[in-house]
Amino acid sequence: MKTDGLDLALVRSTTRAVGAAMFTENRVQAAPVVVSRRHLAQTQPQAIVLNSGCANAATGERGELDALATAAEAGRLLELEAEEILLCSTGVIGVRLPLNKMLPGLSEAASALSETGGEAAAEAIMTTDTRPKQASASGAGFCVGGMAKGAAMIHPKLATMLAIVTTDYPLEEGEAEKFLRPVVERSFNRISVDGDCSTNDTVILLANGAAEIERSEAGDREFERLLGQVCHELAEQIVKDAEGFTVLLEVDVRGAVSEAQAAAIAARIASSPLVKTAAFGHDPNWGRVMMAAGSAPWNGGYAELDPSKVTLAFNGTEVLVDGAHIDVAPAMEGPSCVIALDLGLGEGEASYLASDLSYEYVRLNAEYTT
Amino acid sequence: MKTDGLDLALVRSTTRAVGAAMFTENRVQAAPVVVSRRHLAQTQPQAIVLNSGCANAATGERGELDALATAAEAGRLLELEAEEILLCSTGVIGVRLPLNKMLPGLSEAASALSETGGEAAAEAIMTTDTRPKQASASGAGFCVGGMAKGAAMIHPKLATMLAIVTTDYPLEEGEAEKFLRPVVERSFNRISVDGDCSTNDTVILLANGAAEIERSEAGDREFERLLGQVCHELAEQIVKDAEGFTVLLEVDVRGAVSEAQAAAIAARIASSPLVKTAAFGHDPNWGRVMMAAGSAPWNGGYAELDPSKVTLAFNGTEVLVDGAHIDVAPAMEGPSCVIALDLGLGEGEASYLASDLSYEYVRLNAEYTT
Repeated sequence: MKTDGLDLALVRSTTRAVGAAMFTENRVQAAPVVVSRRHLAQTQPQAIVLNSGCANAATGERGELDALATAAEAGRLLELEAEEILLCSTGVIGVRLPLNKMLPGLSEAASALSETGGEAAAEAIMTTDTRPKQASASGAGFCVGGMAKGAAMIHPKLATMLAIVTTDYPLEEGEAEKFLRPVVERSFNRISVDGDCSTNDTVILLANGAAEIERSEAGDREFERLLGQVCHELAEQIVKDAEGFTVLLEVDVRGAVSEAQAAAIAARIASSPLVKTAAFGHDPNWGRVMMAAGSAPWNGGYAELDPSKVTLAFNGTEVLVDGAHIDVAPAMEGPSCVIALDLGLGEGEASYLASDLSYEYVRLNAEYTT
Repeated sequence: MKTDGLDLALVRSTTRAVGAAMFTENRVQAAPVVVSRRHLAQTQPQAIVLNSGCANAATGERGELDALATAAEAGRLLELEAEEILLCSTGVIGVRLPLNKMLPGLSEAASALSETGGEAAAEAIMTTDTRPKQASASGAGFCVGGMAKGAAMIHPKLATMLAIVTTDYPLEEGEAEKFLRPVVERSFNRISVDGDCSTNDTVILLANGAAEIERSEAGDREFERLLGQVCHELAEQIVKDAEGFTVLLEVDVRGAVSEAQAAAIAARIASSPLVKTAAFGHDPNWGRVMMAAGSAPWNGGYAELDPSKVTLAFNGTEVLVDGAHIDVAPAMEGPSCVIALDLGLGEGEASYLASDLSYEYVRLNAEYTT
């Protein structure tokens, strides 16, 4: 589905679906985000148009009209209302959507729609991703599948993460968000490549009930679990394909006063350039981890932490127990670095995945000059 | 004053001084910070002991006793109360202060005290700083002088910024903080090397009134201005001597709804790895700047910003006017990159200084492996 200069994917539910989406919270929001948010407030989404190459961000009113024109044309081709179409764009900021390529491309994509087109779609939304990102999981009589594109500063002028998750599990109108939000909070919202939040980030869930199974509490719990698994796998694939990636950094915080504070501390550690360069250097640098842990923004101050109660391990080897340093050498050679902190304060726990900070990250983001 | 493995400096007021200090807000605070904070609550500081090589951080109760022993010995040598001594340490975390070297060193430093020892002291507190950092300014009948050490991850296990500012301007007890706090807020608190906040950061002001001039409102205003100038110069010297520094990044935000929100937005831009790698690459990448500006943490959400009202310039050349992109090529060759944003929302303004993110920064912080 790749055409020169513009990559396009079309996702459509085979039967009437319900859906939900979560968007970037950046104050600078791309036109497709603005339009999709509006459509979602009006009706249930049935199809998604994704394009790479142009983010349609910082394009003003003109950008919104271009996004609306795309939705209208997709609606016409698929015999849907324009409001039933959601839009995802990724690419250069500040450039208008090339409708002259976009509209013919849509028509091509619509006629190429097939139930086995997932792989092609996952490829179509790649920009500098090195591989397509897909995940799926099967439950009792239903399945959950998803695709995503990278979270790094993919194109030199844009960081964007897009993820589409579909299921044939039956959900009622309005329920999709209830399932999606906590899962996104614990997967896509707990990865960091460079701590930067794009203008276009979008996660969409479409559920069409095509599995034709009975709803049950056990089914709901299983669906929730599989949705979480698929989102977690996609999130991990995004980190592992991050620009300049060499080491997968996993930060597990437990014993915090709350899950939210655990997440704040894990995020701060996973985003610290000093921790990330240490990971690149395979250095069990607990001093940097403590420095970062002690300065996790929380409510205008810092999250609660008592250094004398902290136990800290690198790849399973404790280097700090109740605040006292132990002179050992954790195994750090491998391609993953697991930093586990027990704060000894409460029951809150959260994990975060991040890439390291390497020469290659700097090269990729510095060498391109406009 | 350098001795092998331990660098020591002693600063003492020639006449009775009043003072104030501001410390790191990290939850992990080094013993010298804990002890100095306590001393400052009891009396006016008259002397400061600074050592490099050992941070005396994450050393528990033992570390506090070592810090107290240092203060007691300095007090004995200088005929002061132990509580009149403040302590600053920088160096490796998790290692005990080598009192066997520290105490003899103190005695040496005390007998070497001289009114012209400023340069030697500025050198003594260097770790991997490449040059001593000093600044001074003269007013009508008084002067303000200061020294500082770097803000980068100086030693592989510690990021620390220390700054001592002295003046012979007459201040009453309790007044020093009133002058120091807003100045630090606008100088040392508005620089960023890697966004990481150390366990030992300290800024101290000592004012001894030795100038013997009359206080006046005009004098106060002049003192305030010179104090600001000295702190700003020291802060700039710290950034310019940052690890891996190649480009001085200055972010000027105006037109925000408040000064605090302007500072939050400027800090977010100046700390963004994507903006910092672009600065390293001499790339006027306004898309990254907008992305960062739109996601500046504020009150649990993001600071106010309306993309359609933003005017943005690189080194004086506007690339965005009221949100509309202008296709020009700003001059980016030089060693400084000034990013100016006018948000068009209100009267709030703030500036931030930062170093760029270079290969050398990654090398310095990754190559050392413990």
